[in-house]
Amino acid sequence: MEFAPFDFLERVRHQKPLVHHITNWVTIYDCAQVVKALGGSPVMAHAAEEVEEMTELASALVLNIGTLTVEVTEAMKLAARRANQKGIPVILDVCGAGATSLRDRKCRELLDAARIDVIKGNKSEIAKVGGESVRTRGVDASEVAADLESIARKLAQARRAAVVITGPTDIITDGARLYRVRNGDPMMAHVVGTGCLAASVIGAFGAVEADLVRAAASALSCYGVAGELAAEHAAGPASFKAALIDRLYLLDRRAMEQRQKIETAL
Amino acid sequence: MEFAPFDFLERVRHQKPLVHHITNWVTIYDCAQVVKALGGSPVMAHAAEEVEEMTELASALVLNIGTLTVEVTEAMKLAARRANQKGIPVILDVCGAGATSLRDRKCRELLDAARIDVIKGNKSEIAKVGGESVRTRGVDASEVAADLESIARKLAQARRAAVVITGPTDIITDGARLYRVRNGDPMMAHVVGTGCLAASVIGAFGAVEADLVRAAASALSCYGVAGELAAEHAAGPASFKAALIDRLYLLDRRAMEQRQKIETAL
Amino acid sequence: MEFAPFDFLERVRHQKPLVHHITNWVTIYDCAQVVKALGGSPVMAHAAEEVEEMTELASALVLNIGTLTVEVTEAMKLAARRANQKGIPVILDVCGAGATSLRDRKCRELLDAARIDVIKGNKSEIAKVGGESVRTRGVDASEVAADLESIARKLAQARRAAVVITGPTDIITDGARLYRVRNGDPMMAHVVGTGCLAASVIGAFGAVEADLVRAAASALSCYGVAGELAAEHAAGPASFKAALIDRLYLLDRRAMEQRQKIETAL
Repeated sequence: MEFAPFDFLERVRHQKPLVHHITNWVTIYDCAQVVKALGGSPVMAHAAEEVEEMTELASALVLNIGTLTVEVTEAMKLAARRANQKGIPVILDVCGAGATSLRDRKCRELLDAARIDVIKGNKSEIAKVGGESVRTRGVDASEVAADLESIARKLAQARRAAVVITGPTDIITDGARLYRVRNGDPMMAHVVGTGCLAASVIGAFGAVEADLVRAAASALSCYGVAGELAAEHAAGPASFKAALIDRLYLLDRRAMEQRQKIETAL
Repeated sequence: MEFAPFDFLERVRHQKPLVHHITNWVTIYDCAQVVKALGGSPVMAHAAEEVEEMTELASALVLNIGTLTVEVTEAMKLAARRANQKGIPVILDVCGAGATSLRDRKCRELLDAARIDVIKGNKSEIAKVGGESVRTRGVDASEVAADLESIARKLAQARRAAVVITGPTDIITDGARLYRVRNGDPMMAHVVGTGCLAASVIGAFGAVEADLVRAAASALSCYGVAGELAAEHAAGPASFKAALIDRLYLLDRRAMEQRQKIETAL
Repeated sequence: MEFAPFDFLERVRHQKPLVHHITNWVTIYDCAQVVKALGGSPVMAHAAEEVEEMTELASALVLNIGTLTVEVTEAMKLAARRANQKGIPVILDVCGAGATSLRDRKCRELLDAARIDVIKGNKSEIAKVGGESVRTRGVDASEVAADLESIARKLAQARRAAVVITGPTDIITDGARLYRVRNGDPMMAHVVGTGCLAASVIGAFGAVEADLVRAAASALSCYGVAGELAAEHAAGPASFKAALIDRLYLLDRRAMEQRQKIETAL
């Protein structure tokens, strides 16, 4: 492979980027903690009166509509536009897209209001944003009939963004290049918020690497390897989540070189 | 006993019900995680514009007024009415009832606005909702002079609901039948949110069993047994909480059959 | 030393004070859990319609602007004025002061709207509130050129408050007396919210001891010692945080007497 995921993690540890989140009330703590465990500096702020100034200080902006309201979505638009002006990446987790019409509408509004650099979701969320006819079951993925890689590529081209579909195999594409990441552990599906955390990890990596497709693929590989290591010592989902954070904090080059599984598709 | 609590847990694991929560900002993560650990699919959404659609997807609705606002309470009413129309159970955790007049007023409004199928609280909260003159100390239970089982039965009859009082002995009644559940561990009182989590567990069980008195008694027995098992490996409240979630995830029929303590009162 | 930190912790365990928080959505659970682990009773409530009544029940009020909005800040003012009338201490965590103009303005408004008994922050936050020209990087401390102890003393005199600067060495002063607390562990800087938790611990100690400078110094010493003990058994930040809560719950006089490091400055 032409890049080493661990190199990007080392940059995060060295540069300690500030990652501004406007996210949901469920996983907000863990989103912050995962950025801190990577060596970054998280900040969560959602008041419309301050989001632009906070984004101005940041090196990446992570948006997540998991518990969206109309008001907070307006703050997201302000922050995203400022991020565009500043030239820092905007990652949008389309959490729950396909579950309600409010989510679908607000996703579209966000995508239209600013340049979103990374659109991230599970398979049914991304299918929905990509125009497929699916219904997401709350915030958990439901089955999608169509080919996920085609959906991701088309959405990436239409929105000129990197698109990330998380799952047992993560798909990352900018419409031209496409990577598959096969790291991770099945226990991640039993922990609330592993999808949200993935977006935060992408945010931290995107803060230090301009090639967002490589940044995202590297982020998900590191995150997945930490999950694999965590699974070795966890009894159930709660001890697993703690171990996942610990293992990200402790992750070293050797473990990454042994375990990283990033495939390049044509 | 005429029913096996573990049977209901198996149904949750098999059916993976979606449990919609409109809850407080303190324990929102753990409420979601406990449903996921049981095998269900949690979703937390509180925007008035989407709660009805989200409830439409769900198999149970859990409401909790722990950090209520006027606005979120209005969303709860919308969701509860939709749940009634759809015929899925509504569980209301009257968290902090008796502490402020806002909570008491909003509890009454919720109980009047829709059919609440399970009213759940600690002893002083339920006493307050049942019309007794008590003052809850924040969200922790204070002493109640009157007989708890009578209070629960009367409230159940008045509101045509199942009533649940959690504590060292849990009381569950529909006004006619009454169960006492004697599972659990004293450490549960040292963990923030064990009461909220109990409501979520009841929500998951209520999603798969129409007899809500049995569903709630079974839920609390499984939850209590997980607490007993967790206590064997925990040093303090934080390691206990993680172990509680892990043990719920791992809970098996053998442990339940050995430990379940559900008494039927006349 | 003329006072024993553990004595105050014993009072918390005995009196079980209710500590009302109006805080941020990131660390709200941990703020509640840390108070409970100490033996106190936390309550989190932010609706303007009930904050005064809730404060009326409490023995201390902890405010934190970590995810402030204009609306919640107004509720903080109401609660703080009621706390003043009742004569219970108000602790303000100026979380993120110096990062945005909204935070700076709202800090000033809070300090002007009511008597704040303890002003607490990291070095750049307190420097900003004290009138120095600094920029806080989100919610993490940035470097401050000026002498921290002078800044703290001046702010304490100007605002007639106790001022607390947390860091590797904590500084606590009322403008005349000044204590330095040298307990804690470097891992605390890798956990999100250790600053917020410090304010909650101060709130619990301030609820049982009128001398807020001694209460705060004792609180930070106990908290730091729990951190030192936690570090002995933690692999990374997540297991460390759980151990920190557990160790606070288990903290005993012997450990405190062996480890407490509180210096009195002239």
